[in-house]
Amino acid sequence: MDTSLNIATIDPNFQIQSNIQEEALVWYDVRKAPFRVYGLHDYQNQFVFRRVPAAVAKATGEPLERLSLHTAGGRVRFKTNSPYIALKTVQNGRGAMPHMPLTGSSSFDLYEKKEGQYTYQKTFIAPVHMTDGYENIFYCNRTDLRDYTLNFPLYHGVNALYIGLHKESVLDAGDRYIHEKPIVYYGSSITQGGCASRPGNAYQAHITRWFDTDHINLGFSGNGKGEKSMADWMASLDMGVFVSDYDFNAPTAEHLEATHKPLYETIRTAHPDIPYIILSRPNLTKKTIQTDARHAIIQKTYVDARAAGDKNVYFIPGNELFGEVDRDVCTVDTTHPTDEGFYRMAQRMARVIKHLDW
Amino acid sequence: MDTSLNIATIDPNFQIQSNIQEEALVWYDVRKAPFRVYGLHDYQNQFVFRRVPAAVAKATGEPLERLSLHTAGGRVRFKTNSPYIALKTVQNGRGAMPHMPLTGSSSFDLYEKKEGQYTYQKTFIAPVHMTDGYENIFYCNRTDLRDYTLNFPLYHGVNALYIGLHKESVLDAGDRYIHEKPIVYYGSSITQGGCASRPGNAYQAHITRWFDTDHINLGFSGNGKGEKSMADWMASLDMGVFVSDYDFNAPTAEHLEATHKPLYETIRTAHPDIPYIILSRPNLTKKTIQTDARHAIIQKTYVDARAAGDKNVYFIPGNELFGEVDRDVCTVDTTHPTDEGFYRMAQRMARVIKHLDW
Repeated sequence: MDTSLNIATIDPNFQIQSNIQEEALVWYDVRKAPFRVYGLHDYQNQFVFRRVPAAVAKATGEPLERLSLHTAGGRVRFKTNSPYIALKTVQNGRGAMPHMPLTGSSSFDLYEKKEGQYTYQKTFIAPVHMTDGYENIFYCNRTDLRDYTLNFPLYHGVNALYIGLHKESVLDAGDRYIHEKPIVYYGSSITQGGCASRPGNAYQAHITRWFDTDHINLGFSGNGKGEKSMADWMASLDMGVFVSDYDFNAPTAEHLEATHKPLYETIRTAHPDIPYIILSRPNLTKKTIQTDARHAIIQKTYVDARAAGDKNVYFIPGNELFGEVDRDVCTVDTTHPTDEGFYRMAQRMARVIKHLDW
Repeated sequence: MDTSLNIATIDPNFQIQSNIQEEALVWYDVRKAPFRVYGLHDYQNQFVFRRVPAAVAKATGEPLERLSLHTAGGRVRFKTNSPYIALKTVQNGRGAMPHMPLTGSSSFDLYEKKEGQYTYQKTFIAPVHMTDGYENIFYCNRTDLRDYTLNFPLYHGVNALYIGLHKESVLDAGDRYIHEKPIVYYGSSITQGGCASRPGNAYQAHITRWFDTDHINLGFSGNGKGEKSMADWMASLDMGVFVSDYDFNAPTAEHLEATHKPLYETIRTAHPDIPYIILSRPNLTKKTIQTDARHAIIQKTYVDARAAGDKNVYFIPGNELFGEVDRDVCTVDTTHPTDEGFYRMAQRMARVIKHLDW
């Protein structure tokens, strides 16, 4: 096996060590065309994949600096007719958590788009004892041209990602989204995707497939605190919809009150016309009347905006997000959604999103 | 803190080391009355919790010997008015898998039964770096008498389990099930509960709560092969319903053919009248016509049984188990169900079970 020759024909400066036994395999760096990476910041010019510019993350604080390197919401899209799709990723350590598997925290999953429908194909599973990344191969045994979307990990950093294809296969850019302007989601660990079993089962991933829309996931586990540095940067983004899924991460109700409406105002000033969706935290128990102080603060942002004449602001109370029956199945620890919880959240949100103009 | 004195009042031969800071806490061994453990074999007399008698497991083979110590389907039931429920478990290592979190493989989750309804309360989460067990405490801050069911881990062995309650609180046996004769499930890794995010989200756990029935989980990851030793022992169990959820673990279709109907006949001979439910493996893709050789073998057991006059045998094709829409969300790796997949399996099975007489 001499893969170095094949690699050299594509990128003479780059050789990739691999244990995959495919003589005709060529590795491609997803940072380069024709690949397009969605949901990650300025990916072609960053040393590691990140969601937030380094200066913004630094200004927002040390936990967010680390979390901003988690690749939640990242996707790479491409077309190929290769009979296999290999993946090699460089990562540091692994995102070991007791209530979320490595398939969700540190792995990639692959969808195929055909006639407007996305279908799940494969999870490239990070090994339990991963230290510096891993590689894997998916034999699809097809040579028709397919349009793929590969989701990045939800709770882990990715230094590099390479896709391996048969050297004689076609490689082209994937389809663009129908909605090229992304939905930007800002929030907590739940927004980041904790605890989906794999990236494609986070709530934003469902919405992105159902509506064929780009998105940017700005959920920061435990650290969605509505900081001004973050609000100002988010306001600078070109976006189609903003989702404020930012509830219990504020250290106190007072902190939430001091930041929740200012976040709305900051985004709204920069984007006078886009839909602005406000969520409160999904509750496992279903109370008809929410008495929680934080919920009231969140709701007030919506009520005040409506009263001030904003017709493009929406509020989804958290106690509606898990539906009506068997709510027990929706969380892994009474707080973080399971795949069932995320699916129900996406269904509830879709009832709002389908009426939006963006 | 002098917990040893409290412990001594209950069991002078036993002292439990604990880091939990509750002076009035008393530890109880769940192997002893008034606790009742369900779903595990002869639990009061075994050195470790097990699902299968040691001799049967040994006769069936070394992998099954190990898997028979996994506590899938185990439950302990009790009533208390203690303002907190502490848990201490002795385990070896941890059930680390890349596609299943420790909350599912190695942890316990707690349900309260009230007016016939079970409600999820708490997951006692195994730490990521667990080596020999762990402890945890749930402050419910209530002093009414509650009826609890605690589910054992799905993919890990449990050497010992202690429940810690306030020394002045009531401890009593939990309610018995409406259906005291268990549903016995025999099968593969999916049957064992891979990859539920926590024990209460395995498909049998839903059915057990919905129908208030005992059950015994005899899913053996990769090792549900229809062995005669296992079939003979299962036939000896006192049971209300048998579920043959035993598909792709057989090494070959020929092996499946040689064992699938004999398993039916062995159980049926010992239990001429109980409902016998046959499943084939849940399929992510939804084919209207199943052409797979294994599926045909499984279906033939059913067709032949009906033809021979058995009116109490049922068949649920695997391609119906994940429902109609958004089937993608149902697996973590194209094979093993997510919580959403298990929930849909349980719903499909409930449509059969609700008509059974047992």
